[in-house]
Amino acid sequence: MDSQTAILEQKVKNLRPLFEPRSIAVIGASRRPEAVGYAILNNLISGGFKGKIFPVNPKADEICGVPCFASVKAIPEAIDLALIIVPNTAVPATLKESGEKGAQAAVIISAGFREIGGEGIQLEAEIKKIAQDLHIPVLGPNCLGLINTDPAVAINASFSRTMPRAGNIAFLSQSGALCAAILDYAKGKHIGFSKFVSLGNKTDVHELDMLRYLKNDAATNVILMYLEDLVNGRAFIDTVREITGEISPTKPILAIKSGRTPQGAKAASSHTGSLMGSDEVYDAIFLQAGVLRVDSVEEMFNFAIGFANQPLPRSGRVAIVTNAGGPGIMATDACVRYGLEMATLAPATIQKLKTALPVTASFSNPVDVIGDARHERYEAALQAVAHDPNVDGIIVILTPQAMTDIEDIAKVIVSLDKQTDKTILTCFMGIVDVSPGVKILEENHIPHYSFPEDAARTLGAMVRYQQWTHRPRTAVKNFKVHTKTVNEILAKAIQNQISFLTVDQSMAVLEAYEFPVLPYQLARSEAEAVQFSKKIGYPVAMKIVSRGISHKFDLGGVRLGLETEAQVQTAYRQMLQQVGRASGAKIDGVLIQAMAQKGWEVILGMKRDPHFGPILMFGIGGIYVETLRDVTFRLAPIRTHGARRMVESIRTFSLLKGMRGQKPSDIQKIMECLERLSQLSCAHPEILEIDINPLIVYPEGAGAAVADARIVVDTA
Amino acid sequence: MDSQTAILEQKVKNLRPLFEPRSIAVIGASRRPEAVGYAILNNLISGGFKGKIFPVNPKADEICGVPCFASVKAIPEAIDLALIIVPNTAVPATLKESGEKGAQAAVIISAGFREIGGEGIQLEAEIKKIAQDLHIPVLGPNCLGLINTDPAVAINASFSRTMPRAGNIAFLSQSGALCAAILDYAKGKHIGFSKFVSLGNKTDVHELDMLRYLKNDAATNVILMYLEDLVNGRAFIDTVREITGEISPTKPILAIKSGRTPQGAKAASSHTGSLMGSDEVYDAIFLQAGVLRVDSVEEMFNFAIGFANQPLPRSGRVAIVTNAGGPGIMATDACVRYGLEMATLAPATIQKLKTALPVTASFSNPVDVIGDARHERYEAALQAVAHDPNVDGIIVILTPQAMTDIEDIAKVIVSLDKQTDKTILTCFMGIVDVSPGVKILEENHIPHYSFPEDAARTLGAMVRYQQWTHRPRTAVKNFKVHTKTVNEILAKAIQNQISFLTVDQSMAVLEAYEFPVLPYQLARSEAEAVQFSKKIGYPVAMKIVSRGISHKFDLGGVRLGLETEAQVQTAYRQMLQQVGRASGAKIDGVLIQAMAQKGWEVILGMKRDPHFGPILMFGIGGIYVETLRDVTFRLAPIRTHGARRMVESIRTFSLLKGMRGQKPSDIQKIMECLERLSQLSCAHPEILEIDINPLIVYPEGAGAAVADARIVVDTA
Repeated sequence: MDSQTAILEQKVKNLRPLFEPRSIAVIGASRRPEAVGYAILNNLISGGFKGKIFPVNPKADEICGVPCFASVKAIPEAIDLALIIVPNTAVPATLKESGEKGAQAAVIISAGFREIGGEGIQLEAEIKKIAQDLHIPVLGPNCLGLINTDPAVAINASFSRTMPRAGNIAFLSQSGALCAAILDYAKGKHIGFSKFVSLGNKTDVHELDMLRYLKNDAATNVILMYLEDLVNGRAFIDTVREITGEISPTKPILAIKSGRTPQGAKAASSHTGSLMGSDEVYDAIFLQAGVLRVDSVEEMFNFAIGFANQPLPRSGRVAIVTNAGGPGIMATDACVRYGLEMATLAPATIQKLKTALPVTASFSNPVDVIGDARHERYEAALQAVAHDPNVDGIIVILTPQAMTDIEDIAKVIVSLDKQTDKTILTCFMGIVDVSPGVKILEENHIPHYSFPEDAARTLGAMVRYQQWTHRPRTAVKNFKVHTKTVNEILAKAIQNQISFLTVDQSMAVLEAYEFPVLPYQLARSEAEAVQFSKKIGYPVAMKIVSRGISHKFDLGGVRLGLETEAQVQTAYRQMLQQVGRASGAKIDGVLIQAMAQKGWEVILGMKRDPHFGPILMFGIGGIYVETLRDVTFRLAPIRTHGARRMVESIRTFSLLKGMRGQKPSDIQKIMECLERLSQLSCAHPEILEIDINPLIVYPEGAGAAVADARIVVDTA
Repeated sequence: MDSQTAILEQKVKNLRPLFEPRSIAVIGASRRPEAVGYAILNNLISGGFKGKIFPVNPKADEICGVPCFASVKAIPEAIDLALIIVPNTAVPATLKESGEKGAQAAVIISAGFREIGGEGIQLEAEIKKIAQDLHIPVLGPNCLGLINTDPAVAINASFSRTMPRAGNIAFLSQSGALCAAILDYAKGKHIGFSKFVSLGNKTDVHELDMLRYLKNDAATNVILMYLEDLVNGRAFIDTVREITGEISPTKPILAIKSGRTPQGAKAASSHTGSLMGSDEVYDAIFLQAGVLRVDSVEEMFNFAIGFANQPLPRSGRVAIVTNAGGPGIMATDACVRYGLEMATLAPATIQKLKTALPVTASFSNPVDVIGDARHERYEAALQAVAHDPNVDGIIVILTPQAMTDIEDIAKVIVSLDKQTDKTILTCFMGIVDVSPGVKILEENHIPHYSFPEDAARTLGAMVRYQQWTHRPRTAVKNFKVHTKTVNEILAKAIQNQISFLTVDQSMAVLEAYEFPVLPYQLARSEAEAVQFSKKIGYPVAMKIVSRGISHKFDLGGVRLGLETEAQVQTAYRQMLQQVGRASGAKIDGVLIQAMAQKGWEVILGMKRDPHFGPILMFGIGGIYVETLRDVTFRLAPIRTHGARRMVESIRTFSLLKGMRGQKPSDIQKIMECLERLSQLSCAHPEILEIDINPLIVYPEGAGAAVADARIVVDTA
């Protein structure tokens, strides 16, 4: 792990030449205006790059007035950054040559690699190898390039149509074509960027490298990402948690992860596995990392302009000032929908409003300054609510009536923004008539939205992020457990090539990790069954134990509530006969188990993802687990706070919390079980899947009991 | 009912002079450019009104070049429409005068009525009375006015900033200030309107009048509404169902109902009541009426341009054509999220694509023509998918790369649209560079969206509406029932001023309506308890019956599964003692009831809304009803199809449908019970609330059983 971290750190240091090269070779520069090799060179020049540019084209003397070189070698001095736009088959040699010429970094724009299959896969492997040998960061291939708007560098090494304006937002994209749309959208909305990166195929440089670089990038306050996959889920969480929660000031990260469509549930032998889609895993990763997952480009930028330009609200108490009743109600609806609280205005505020506004106005929240309001009324109302200690954020709504002095009202808001540290979002509804006002707002970094719902949703996201940065900081617990016992059980299973542990083995594993397992013993004879039942104490449950039987319940392999010796004897005989005959499987014996008291049934589980490691599940149990899919996931290891969040996040949590005078359940015990499950999953990579189903939970202080469990081992 | 319908019809006929007056008196016309009375006169003139205009202002000779009159009386001829902009206190007299001058309709722009309380309420009542006496439709007061873009009339009787372009969309708004925003938004998006109406306080003319008018308005194909309340829920459903489902062609209606914020659950004595918020009722009304409820102005217009400009898709099979992979995936995600199905392209289509596109393209859906595509590639791909019989709708996505010929691609789409009857929606992502292409699309009535999610959501809404228009047409059933029995029970309760029927009375009511009530008898002595238990058959349940006890279960007033005479005797004595002592209430006796077989528990209920009449509820029963709020509502009466939709719409329907090899439950019997409940609720307006909780449902064909019920009667 430490050596991995070191490599990552190394890479972070190395990214500098990508963003701040003193010289660039444009290898594959072209004279044809429709060619990518022309567009990029032209962008470098017109973007005002502050270093030296060396176009490389064997057939040209100069392009765009810049002298050309016949080859990389022919360049008279060492180069910092190689921009490679040559045909795919020529890329490996070009990259190697660039390295020999002293290149500290490379961007491969060329396509025709992994994405075309066949030969492309081979070529991509080659450039990966060369990049590693050269020890330089290589961005791409198959990307649009990158942009650094820092005026000291001013590099537009991309074939975008335009250089974006400078700003404090960084954007990373795994889709090149999306970049073109984003840049055009940002142009229309006057949104600026610090860094703009098309990741391409992520052969060498990937999102983690970029995130670690951006963490220390003073020009970047907000990070946006479009991703189709992650190179490493756990490392992503660890890297990102620092950016979103530990450094000062923290940098919010907004991400689109596309491919939400549920893949057909893959064959999985556990409940946990069958309930876990890839999208749930990404949700878990983003949640644990403090990343705000967004559903669309629109939502991403709506949020981004809020985070980039306004302070975070202290909490979610919002005041609305509007000149239109209807939109005021719509905004109120949206605020409630997105988890905000309508601020209760202080009496002094209401008094100020009553003094300043006409009698027909509304003096409570939402404050309606009425349709014929001009800027004076807006100013009075905004000053009043901004000074109200009960208000954390303000949404200003305007509709363009004939008498509305839109630009003056915009100026009033700009002036207020300079005087207050409260979050201000605006919504001038319309397009044409409101545009001069919107321009004033946007140029002065006041977030503007066309509709009140977008403003409310953004403020809601800002509050959620504020809560994330102020969450309780807990640690990963390390319970004293009997690791040796578990290792022995697992070793035996692997030795015997048995993937599915029997119920007594599964219970033994959990017992070794000090889960509250119901007392049990494996009886191999009728006599033992009677003896163990007596020892455990009546009533008992009996469960057939056989590695050939996975649906013991359906086969009549489970008997509950046996009260007497005679009942146990009869059951033992019947089960062996009946189940043995029905299944033909070898019977190891019958598990004698104490009967559980009634309580709420929950399910705890783990499935090891080949990519992301152990993923924990928690949900409501019983028949409802599959109907409602009321489950939640987290990557292990989890901290105490994470365990709490898991339990509290299911829809049926109110059942566990205790409704209508019922006692609350033992939430602490569930959390502890989740933390033990986390430790077990991390300590024993041989375990592929775990179902603890059900864990029966009792009232607060009374604990819980594992009634059944299932463990699948990797015997390969 | 018939006389009401007649009045409505009468009103519909009368609305014509509002929209098509030959002459207008502008009473309160002003010379001051910032005044409403100036803006409206100016709008009438500059809008090109085809009739005569008579400004009324005692202090002016002419305004805007039009001769003024000192009073309404002074106008030399009869007037068609009176536009009233005088101070609130002068409105009643002005309205009366206008009527005397022959006005066939009036619009009261003036504010200062119900919305200011006090004197305003009084004034509003006055004008309502005058309107009724005059038998003319009066729009407002407190409104922005109305617009009819029909070139034969061209009336802009509003104080909007501009006259919208003509189009096939009608807009009704209960918020005046919102109108200004909508008009400005529509101007920016090149959206046209047929009629544009600010409803104001709805004193006389309300949404139902307008809807009945628009139903027959040839210029209107789509109706949009912003509402804060409805004058009549049931009449709304009946009126609107015709518009959205019965006339040909049907007219889709999109509505924003603001005030979604849940009101604090009002004190309600039934489960049904406590689960029913006003918003759920509006959801039910819109659902039953075939109205598409939208959450925001943005969504409303996104949908509207789809409905107004494109044919409905035959079903939900969508093809995506894109030049960008990332947005293609995002669009796919969104399509799945909004209930669409990604079309499986026919082999012939794929062959065509392979011939026309480069090898790096994607030939399956989403079809990726690759970032460097020009219009020829788009044309080939679009022609191929448009001719595919597996495709019902097409979403075309474009991102602006350097080489993308945006305008030519727009023209290709326009040309395709003329050749096909499939639904085409477009998404040119960006703002500035794409705008010339977007303009071509918008001018040619091709719906355009800035983001693929909006296009997918719109297509999803169009599919839902298409399904609505093709829904099975069923009737309201009329069961033969024992109305007399019910009337007697209710009469007795009212006579004795007892609101809560006892459980035996409630059961008797349901029995009279032939619900499958479990056998029961009310025992008034221990001997009777034993006798009835024997008759009903062991095991039995026993429930205390007392009108003073509402939580009989908590007090120990319920015993289940009693198997013997001795158990019944003991239980009877204990219950009387224990419950009697604990509650101090008078005990009527003990209900002896057959024990129900196990099955799924569901809840059926009814609550009578003072405004909307009986509202039916259906949901999953047991502890989950309150935790999950997995319930659905409909206004009574319901049809058979409506009953089916209710049952199928709950989240836990899969439990009833039968999961994992389990037998399906008797859905038919639940539907029948809902239809009986509907009849019961409509036939007996004295019943305020009904809970049938639980109805225990058995496998298909095995029926269901009412195990407990509660009825609340209006004794006032």
